[in-house]
Amino acid sequence: MRHTFLSLEESRIREVANAGMGHADVLPFWFGESDETTPQAVSDAAIASLRAGETFYSHNLGLPALREAIAAYMARLHGGAIGVERIAVTSGGVNALMLSVQALVDPGDEVVAITPVWPNLTAQPRVMGAHLRCVPLRPGPDGAWALDMDALRQAVTPATRLLVVNAPNNPTGWTLSAGEQRQILEHCRATGTWILADEVYERLYYEPTPRGCAPSFLDIAEPADRLVVVHSFSKSFLMTGWRLGWLVMPPAMTPHMGKLIEFNTSCVSVFTQRAGIAALQHEPEITPRVVGHLRTCRDTLLPLLQALPGLLAHPASGGMYAFFRLAGHGDSLATAKRLVAEAGLGLAPGEAFGPEGQGWLRWCFASKDPGRLAEGVARLRKWLEGAGAV
Amino acid sequence: MRHTFLSLEESRIREVANAGMGHADVLPFWFGESDETTPQAVSDAAIASLRAGETFYSHNLGLPALREAIAAYMARLHGGAIGVERIAVTSGGVNALMLSVQALVDPGDEVVAITPVWPNLTAQPRVMGAHLRCVPLRPGPDGAWALDMDALRQAVTPATRLLVVNAPNNPTGWTLSAGEQRQILEHCRATGTWILADEVYERLYYEPTPRGCAPSFLDIAEPADRLVVVHSFSKSFLMTGWRLGWLVMPPAMTPHMGKLIEFNTSCVSVFTQRAGIAALQHEPEITPRVVGHLRTCRDTLLPLLQALPGLLAHPASGGMYAFFRLAGHGDSLATAKRLVAEAGLGLAPGEAFGPEGQGWLRWCFASKDPGRLAEGVARLRKWLEGAGAV
Repeated sequence: MRHTFLSLEESRIREVANAGMGHADVLPFWFGESDETTPQAVSDAAIASLRAGETFYSHNLGLPALREAIAAYMARLHGGAIGVERIAVTSGGVNALMLSVQALVDPGDEVVAITPVWPNLTAQPRVMGAHLRCVPLRPGPDGAWALDMDALRQAVTPATRLLVVNAPNNPTGWTLSAGEQRQILEHCRATGTWILADEVYERLYYEPTPRGCAPSFLDIAEPADRLVVVHSFSKSFLMTGWRLGWLVMPPAMTPHMGKLIEFNTSCVSVFTQRAGIAALQHEPEITPRVVGHLRTCRDTLLPLLQALPGLLAHPASGGMYAFFRLAGHGDSLATAKRLVAEAGLGLAPGEAFGPEGQGWLRWCFASKDPGRLAEGVARLRKWLEGAGAV
Repeated sequence: MRHTFLSLEESRIREVANAGMGHADVLPFWFGESDETTPQAVSDAAIASLRAGETFYSHNLGLPALREAIAAYMARLHGGAIGVERIAVTSGGVNALMLSVQALVDPGDEVVAITPVWPNLTAQPRVMGAHLRCVPLRPGPDGAWALDMDALRQAVTPATRLLVVNAPNNPTGWTLSAGEQRQILEHCRATGTWILADEVYERLYYEPTPRGCAPSFLDIAEPADRLVVVHSFSKSFLMTGWRLGWLVMPPAMTPHMGKLIEFNTSCVSVFTQRAGIAALQHEPEITPRVVGHLRTCRDTLLPLLQALPGLLAHPASGGMYAFFRLAGHGDSLATAKRLVAEAGLGLAPGEAFGPEGQGWLRWCFASKDPGRLAEGVARLRKWLEGAGAV
């Protein structure tokens, strides 16, 4: 077995969650997933497809009808230059990311990632034999995270094959502004660096915006730019378990991506793709409601957290996470494990997302019942009072 | 983009199929897929799961119930040493193969493959930056293909990280004997080489056998041997479009494989896994019927083919393909394209599977109605008579 394979880090989120499996009374907020099931109109489309016997192989790049629906959706959000010739349907957002890294990164290539970030994004280049460098976001005194643009410019050089950026960011909630995206794009054009933009949280955005989504590299890039944008049905359509995502890429890349999909998964099940078509058809009923509810969740959780003594948190601009620090609890893995065992509260340790996250905790606020969030904070308060007394 | 990515070969099977897309009256036998839909009990299990709202992430390695059902099925076919700790559920057989190569092959490693073979098996090591060497099977005067064991022993040395073998073989129908498997295993133990055995056609086996499957490396190997066996629900359960497969590996490999699955696809949809559980529960009704029907298809097609002048074919021991040569038609891609355009007959060109396949054609005989096979042969006969007259 490869050393690279054997040395893949186990997710520290899973490490905490596994520690909690035996405990009956744990409120879990550790995974990046709502506890709400997929809307029925979406599941019904898959059921109808199964009933119709759509159980055969399909096109590597996806059903034409789904690719067209995705292209129209992307063009509506980001302008007209996104046609079906730039779209591939993938087995989830993470699969889209892996395919992109396989397409772009040779063994020994240098990859730069902005961290803290979902650990899959930094593991994938390692699987492909790349050298990884990280540019850390920095927390301000108010707990809001920000990018040091000079540090990024210094890190991304003509030797950098790929820049990996996830904004809105999991776990910090940090979001790139359009101006920052413009600076990054200009810099990467100059260095010849590809941008892999994980924008799966773009609709989960809480700042004022005319089109209901975060700034995107697609708003400013040309079709031929060295840019791959990754999307997923998971968050905006409550479809985590479906494993359905997509790629937006330069048109010249798409036929080759079809071959790579053939060698990875062949295609996505037709019935799952039919669910994706239904999701986009019902988008006006689904996504604004999901996002409005998540805003309620955020606005329920944050003030309660901020009222706790020694807790530093800033409302996320995007995403579905509160990322916060607890004074006197600098070891986030140990703290998360203690919270499971002693408070019945399941959070993700910040160090799971990079060393910058050490001392921080991630709380997924995608909860069907916001009362669960209040109950979670009550448990945290009680634990802090007890821990303070120890 | 990587040179490796840009130079991935387009499937020559797809090249022929694409050329036929405009033609209304083509009988397609080019893809490795039955034209029969998935059994209803299997689809019903997925529908029930969707109705129950099972639309969330699940364990990287698969649902415990499915892994246990797979382990029991494998143990029934291959003896008792296959427990759940050796099983991972994957997004299809091809995904299981890709994960195995990611786990085992470092950039620059040497990989040996036995060819002709499904082109995905030789493309995957290239994606991972390996050096590929091929050991060709050889056709006998009767059209039956065989392995030159001395050539294989010479090719697989201590420098060989991985041996890739697909038996029963797509496209030739060649199958390894238990004795040959023993020799290969002994040799690879001596050289320290991993064996990646694609055994997805093991149940599609037409020789006398007590347990209804082809000889498997699992019959003879120890759990700790450097052996990974890849399986799929596609062929034996009529589930090509579901993208559901599995791996059998050494127990020490499994936890690491879970992480690799996280970085590739995260998990397989729960509703798809429920379908897999139902497929295994109904295996006694499904697979023997499927295999019996395929035998009828083979025994319908082969004598008709063999009766054609200048045609050399041998009944396959396993798989679902007739692989044959036509005298005077040495360019298989050109022949396949002419057959589509001039005869309305869709076959796969043998060169798609390696240079040894040049001059051969692959006919997938998995046809719900064996009459389609006879109609196809009638078209071929008519075309041969016309081509002979030109």
